[in-house]
Amino acid sequence: MECDFVNYNALLMNDETLDDLQLNGLMLIQKQNAFRFGIDAVLLANFANVRKNSRVIDLCTGTGIVPFLIKGKKNPKTVLGIEIQEEFVEMANRSVEINKLKEQVSFMAGDLKDINLLKKIDKADIVTVNPPYKLNSSGIINPNDRLAIARHEILCNLEDVIIAARILLKDNGRLCMVHRPERLADILCLMRKHKIEPKRIQMIHPNTKKPPNIVLIEGQRDGGAFLKWEAPLYVYGEDGRYTEEIDKIYGRSKGEGSNE
Amino acid sequence: MECDFVNYNALLMNDETLDDLQLNGLMLIQKQNAFRFGIDAVLLANFANVRKNSRVIDLCTGTGIVPFLIKGKKNPKTVLGIEIQEEFVEMANRSVEINKLKEQVSFMAGDLKDINLLKKIDKADIVTVNPPYKLNSSGIINPNDRLAIARHEILCNLEDVIIAARILLKDNGRLCMVHRPERLADILCLMRKHKIEPKRIQMIHPNTKKPPNIVLIEGQRDGGAFLKWEAPLYVYGEDGRYTEEIDKIYGRSKGEGSNE
Repeated sequence: MECDFVNYNALLMNDETLDDLQLNGLMLIQKQNAFRFGIDAVLLANFANVRKNSRVIDLCTGTGIVPFLIKGKKNPKTVLGIEIQEEFVEMANRSVEINKLKEQVSFMAGDLKDINLLKKIDKADIVTVNPPYKLNSSGIINPNDRLAIARHEILCNLEDVIIAARILLKDNGRLCMVHRPERLADILCLMRKHKIEPKRIQMIHPNTKKPPNIVLIEGQRDGGAFLKWEAPLYVYGEDGRYTEEIDKIYGRSKGEGSNE
Repeated sequence: MECDFVNYNALLMNDETLDDLQLNGLMLIQKQNAFRFGIDAVLLANFANVRKNSRVIDLCTGTGIVPFLIKGKKNPKTVLGIEIQEEFVEMANRSVEINKLKEQVSFMAGDLKDINLLKKIDKADIVTVNPPYKLNSSGIINPNDRLAIARHEILCNLEDVIIAARILLKDNGRLCMVHRPERLADILCLMRKHKIEPKRIQMIHPNTKKPPNIVLIEGQRDGGAFLKWEAPLYVYGEDGRYTEEIDKIYGRSKGEGSNE
């Protein structure tokens, strides 16, 4: 890929930065003061069992970080990101342009509660989602706050996300979600309610001595009941540094490239 | 407590042993070849937040191990064990006699599916249960096999246990259960269905590198939704020996007595 800094900068707004994902040369446009991607997106992209011939849809896609990470790590056939805030869709599409990935990665504006819209979209093998994880129980949230929309269940809640995934998935397709362990009862019960059977869970702990603070969960559309638990993942070791497993997921492991 | 071996032996059947629980001098009659209590019972007794003035009911009590451990560790007001197999109730009552605990620990024969029976029992602050954890999906199980009854959902299933707990608990009383992580979706969904809200979970792992193989879960009758995760517990350390936490739960910690 040829570098052309002048053109790249012309593609950025004032409040945006262009960041190197350290993964096959992929770049991502992000907002300067918000929506910097975090470990949730990296863990989700790693957790999803995406194959070369998979069609993937990412809900609540925001900047598009999960589609780009999945593209970079697993190189599936296509990844479509759906996002309700048009400003982010426009930004993610500029990231597509920068990465010259129009054939494989695309973004569309849409409300995942719009069932008619969802029914028009080609079905996916895998749906990924890093949804707003906080209940919209506080009255003090500003509904125009873009960060609040990403974090709190303002424009969609967990059940909306699961209903959308069921519509978007092929038979036996898989929903992969990153969320918070304190919501696990909600997640498992709503998945079951909408016939996406919980099949695989991995808990992420800050270290071996602390409770989990992130959960990764995979459900299968109309799957049979058996829940497999993965070995837990610890972010920091006893020395306070990232564990080997985390370094590997980030593609920083010694002797390993960034393209698994 | 005075020792009187002659009397103790007179209380044992041929296929029974009298075992020292290493806890305030408590003894337990067990079957020689089956129903030796295991780590599940010890973890459950430790996990349950039992107070001095608590009334505790233990379902699927078997030999009575959980009531005796709770008595020895937490010394609550009363503990009642309910068991469907009369042979075990009779055996557990002999353990009561040996331990001279008639005022605090008692056992009764009963089927936890017998709603009318349950309604006659005084309500509890805490219900504990180590239920059969395997689905009764195999046709080869002998329904007269006492061990199979304890392990497989033959005479009661998970939903029966949760319905029984709801009837036996006071308002806001707590159900504490030990089970298998692969059944967690069943557990959480059935608790919610019967309005016992999951409040606290602890996962037990063989060591830090392995998936959990035991789950401890506490639900509150008509409780509000918030699920707290405890730090995980690892049974073995890197040296292959029991971890300090497990030694402590077993009352084997250096400098600590067996009576916490």
